[in-house]
Amino acid sequence: MDIELLDTTLRDGAQGEGIAFSVQDKLAVIRALDELGIPWIEAGSPGSNPKDAELFSLAVKLPLERSRLCAFGPTRRPSRTPAADPGIERLLASGAPALSIFGKSWDLHVREILRISQEENLAMIAETVAYLKEQGRLVFFDAEHFFDGFKDNPAYALETLKAASDAGADRIVLCDTNGGSFPGAIAGGVRAAADYMEKPALPLGIHAHNDMGLALAVSFAAVEAGCVHVQGTLAGFGERCGNAALAAFIPSLELKLGYSCLPPEGLARISEITRVVAEVANVALPPSMPYVGSSAFSHKGGMHSDGVLKLRRSFEHVDPALVGSHRRILLSEVGGRSAVAQRLRRIDPAVTRDHPAAVLLAEKLKEMEASGWAFEGAGASFDLLARRELGRHEPFFTILAYRVMSEHPTGKSIACSHAWVKVWVDGQDEIAAAEGDGPVHALDGALRRALIRFYPQLERVRLTDYKVRVINGGAATAARVRVLIESTDGRHTWTTLGVSEDIIDASRAALVDSIEYKLIEDGGET
Amino acid sequence: MDIELLDTTLRDGAQGEGIAFSVQDKLAVIRALDELGIPWIEAGSPGSNPKDAELFSLAVKLPLERSRLCAFGPTRRPSRTPAADPGIERLLASGAPALSIFGKSWDLHVREILRISQEENLAMIAETVAYLKEQGRLVFFDAEHFFDGFKDNPAYALETLKAASDAGADRIVLCDTNGGSFPGAIAGGVRAAADYMEKPALPLGIHAHNDMGLALAVSFAAVEAGCVHVQGTLAGFGERCGNAALAAFIPSLELKLGYSCLPPEGLARISEITRVVAEVANVALPPSMPYVGSSAFSHKGGMHSDGVLKLRRSFEHVDPALVGSHRRILLSEVGGRSAVAQRLRRIDPAVTRDHPAAVLLAEKLKEMEASGWAFEGAGASFDLLARRELGRHEPFFTILAYRVMSEHPTGKSIACSHAWVKVWVDGQDEIAAAEGDGPVHALDGALRRALIRFYPQLERVRLTDYKVRVINGGAATAARVRVLIESTDGRHTWTTLGVSEDIIDASRAALVDSIEYKLIEDGGET
Repeated sequence: MDIELLDTTLRDGAQGEGIAFSVQDKLAVIRALDELGIPWIEAGSPGSNPKDAELFSLAVKLPLERSRLCAFGPTRRPSRTPAADPGIERLLASGAPALSIFGKSWDLHVREILRISQEENLAMIAETVAYLKEQGRLVFFDAEHFFDGFKDNPAYALETLKAASDAGADRIVLCDTNGGSFPGAIAGGVRAAADYMEKPALPLGIHAHNDMGLALAVSFAAVEAGCVHVQGTLAGFGERCGNAALAAFIPSLELKLGYSCLPPEGLARISEITRVVAEVANVALPPSMPYVGSSAFSHKGGMHSDGVLKLRRSFEHVDPALVGSHRRILLSEVGGRSAVAQRLRRIDPAVTRDHPAAVLLAEKLKEMEASGWAFEGAGASFDLLARRELGRHEPFFTILAYRVMSEHPTGKSIACSHAWVKVWVDGQDEIAAAEGDGPVHALDGALRRALIRFYPQLERVRLTDYKVRVINGGAATAARVRVLIESTDGRHTWTTLGVSEDIIDASRAALVDSIEYKLIEDGGET
Repeated sequence: MDIELLDTTLRDGAQGEGIAFSVQDKLAVIRALDELGIPWIEAGSPGSNPKDAELFSLAVKLPLERSRLCAFGPTRRPSRTPAADPGIERLLASGAPALSIFGKSWDLHVREILRISQEENLAMIAETVAYLKEQGRLVFFDAEHFFDGFKDNPAYALETLKAASDAGADRIVLCDTNGGSFPGAIAGGVRAAADYMEKPALPLGIHAHNDMGLALAVSFAAVEAGCVHVQGTLAGFGERCGNAALAAFIPSLELKLGYSCLPPEGLARISEITRVVAEVANVALPPSMPYVGSSAFSHKGGMHSDGVLKLRRSFEHVDPALVGSHRRILLSEVGGRSAVAQRLRRIDPAVTRDHPAAVLLAEKLKEMEASGWAFEGAGASFDLLARRELGRHEPFFTILAYRVMSEHPTGKSIACSHAWVKVWVDGQDEIAAAEGDGPVHALDGALRRALIRFYPQLERVRLTDYKVRVINGGAATAARVRVLIESTDGRHTWTTLGVSEDIIDASRAALVDSIEYKLIEDGGET
């Protein structure tokens, strides 16, 4: 049983708040979706948006292996022929093998928004589909607001589908544009559409929105009622509350319902590729996102952690490895000593749940969490904390003093930051200074320069991510911040943490941990 | 038709990654849920957690108007009587009028996790329920993993419910603990449970998890199959992918299905109260969260913005005011000139969609968005940009220079930041300096001191929120950051924006806009 997927991250997804793709971003998303094996990529609206027109001119040249491109646009305008509509011409000029054409299926929109006759609307649909078919393209007809239309005026809503189908459309996609329909109403609409068109061979599709939090449920209901084409966006981006999140839809469809929709190796890459798309969009994936979120297989409650360590399926509905994810036992006050002990065994294999160090650290964690520390995502800083508590850590260096200065000499010129740092290593001290794009960048540079004489291997360490979280935003500029820094030496990656009212001091703490961690892992050798 | 709600933000929600409540936080959440009118608040596990025991000792004294408290814990341990189980005694000592007792309904857990006989498990359930009933409490039996158990060994799963029901439980709550069940399986399980117990008067409940993104759909299916008690967490917090989000469940239940579950004025406060709970939990509400997220009624696509401005229901499935929210037309490259023109009319009522300023600004927005600016949440900065472009803005002041210094004199003492600023106002200059908890706090202080001589009304301005977003995290400490500052003068609130590689300079831009905006709104008078 196969379900055909269409990803519209680059079109409906780009209409989500806070999302803006450059042409280069869009090309990166297309490549990622092709790697995953999504059959159709709706990449933009070249008819109305010059940036999307440019995109298609580049995208059609990409050597895609598994995906094909689709361009999106409205039916012809009222009182024109399709051939005389510049939007339609630009759509064709995209060179995309498939064209998604949306038309109105809700009489309310025909009357109140387009302000045309019902007949003209049907003609716009039929003529546009027929014209594009003549040009040799695949045509997907998106029946906008189909389910709202079917509720208000079922006969007319069905007529719009028939207009597209009779004109030769290759797919009829039923859209719950406003996201206000329950799964039962969706199933009813899909069955009515299939019956009315009497063309069992014409594939029906679903396009769901999440305004009631039911986009996935609606998509499953539509598949059960006969849809074989499903539209959504990998990470769930889209207008208002977003579209059906394919990254959450695909695993259930394949693992639980026995459908297939990705190439064989696809599912195991879905977490990684979804992260890539979110990264390009510069949006943090919700940690609680099903299957692919960072918390999806995280266990925090003490009994859950104990249980899942005994028997995987006691608290996991699927094996995280199937979707390229992995289990995390969280270090936290409610996580209990099992989780702390499990992590401590990386430092000292003899540590059990009742070891005094586990008891002490579990207590210490509670206190630190209360003041804004959160080690859940910063295992390297937790290991350092544990080593310090176990008396197993002799610092490789000490910062004796630092000073960071940011100045802005005139109203027009760019700001500049510089820093100096004095460190103490093994009885010797060293001073270094650096400039940077901002105060933290300058401090990072100065600290490395001061230490590199003692630890040349730091040359290979690079910071790969820097995150700032304001913990108590209400305190405004005096707010406490949590800084997370991700570092790599090319082989390994580790994350460290700092918390302070002063963003520079919080960054200093995370930078120090990052360097200490690297030096410990190297055994201190140069 | 009434549905009884139980909110477990403080218990299951607290097991969500990144969530840690202090006792004071928990009291604040209880007060908020009481204001909203949630009938039952599951506030913690006093039997196993001393902090929760302390919480209940304080919470039972709160003058709650609409909510009652519930304490959570397991059945008695194997081979003990309930009266001799210290966990059960501590649960009773909480003083909560209702006790949620969870027991195992999945034979797998009985065998592999508890490692006891099936008979002993049934006895644990029956004896614990009976004992707590004797003590005069309401008892909610949480049938953990009921749906997984019902799938593997339906007869035994149903027996565990009957054990609780025969012992006098007041509610039987069917839990999809691992979140792996589809709505159809849930409905089947609920109906089987109702048939088996043959006690139509005993209310059945549902407790759903979101591991497949179906927690809401599952809860609706359970209600349709006969459940009258629904558990969830207001903002959706909970183990792994979270619980059913009541803030998304309640509006559909009341507005679309005609059930009632909150007091009459409750629904209109749900956005506000959900934000309070998220704020206390120190978690950013997902902007795309149905009904209550900041993007839930945001329109960005040009045709959507045009349509909804013509006719509300063309692109809104419910009226945002019903859930205490409001529509936002987003200012962005895909939003088009209508949105820009609408906003520009606040400055100049004559501006239309085709006004050169609207065309120009829509273009400018595209460019600025490409380099990381995002005005969607910062209307005040957009207004200033528009005034500057329209030539309608004469700055009230200029920063001639500033210098911010952060230093850390020794390894042990706290870091300290200070700043000086030189401003130019109306031909005069002024220098001021200030210390602060961090560099931005110091800069803010110095800038206000310098300006207050010229604009005494700034005395009343306070910053109420400060947010930092790293835009291109991959560039690590040289990353570009976006700073959002929310300010108030006690009557109005406005948000401004700054973007830079330098967090201090980004903050400077947002601070300057905040002050300029205030001075414009006041008409410049002192």
